[in-house]
Amino acid sequence: MKTRIPILKLNEVLIVSIQWELDDQTAIQFQEDLLNKMHETSALGVVIDLTPIDFIDSFIAKVLGDVINMTGLMGAKVVITGIQPAVAITLIELGIRLNNVMTALDLENGLDKLTKELEA
Amino acid sequence: MKTRIPILKLNEVLIVSIQWELDDQTAIQFQEDLLNKMHETSALGVVIDLTPIDFIDSFIAKVLGDVINMTGLMGAKVVITGIQPAVAITLIELGIRLNNVMTALDLENGLDKLTKELEA
Repeated sequence: MKTRIPILKLNEVLIVSIQWELDDQTAIQFQEDLLNKMHETSALGVVIDLTPIDFIDSFIAKVLGDVINMTGLMGAKVVITGIQPAVAITLIELGIRLNNVMTALDLENGLDKLTKELEA
Repeated sequence: MKTRIPILKLNEVLIVSIQWELDDQTAIQFQEDLLNKMHETSALGVVIDLTPIDFIDSFIAKVLGDVINMTGLMGAKVVITGIQPAVAITLIELGIRLNNVMTALDLENGLDKLTKELEA
């Protein structure tokens, strides 16, 4: 069975919780799945929770940066939650700037932030 | 990589979205993960969304019935959402009665129902 990351729809928001380190193929599949799901559901926002992830390699970091920019292009607001120190370091060191992206400490805070932003 | 089903924590509720048919090992792992996560987080409720699942075999049906009874024993309220016709038929034909279990059409309704139940 190919590993895929479940994407939940909750009202107008998609929620993705990445709970284990991604291998390259899963990351690419995730990118495709998320963009398709956004298109299907006309979601207005996406929360990507990385809380359990304590390490990402450069390929995954790039895919993640790309997917965030792509969802932005498709018109959704993105919140990334639970970025751990090592992940923050990797992202910045690789020059992956998360502009236009909100961040929050955990999934609950991220959803609150996104919901407020969408209501504004 | 072993396939695992992500379990999201949202306030006092755990959310599980089963988006692909489970193989036996994944189902057993899921049972263990969910009970552990309930214990860790002291969750008061669980929503299990089966919307994309259009078929379950007898083993998975049994594991699902078990996990629902186990979470009940551990003191959480359970809502199952998005049960499709064929899944309902399998569950009933196998004699898996989902007593004490709320059901709802989709994840959003299930969460609403659970939240109201927990507030009551």
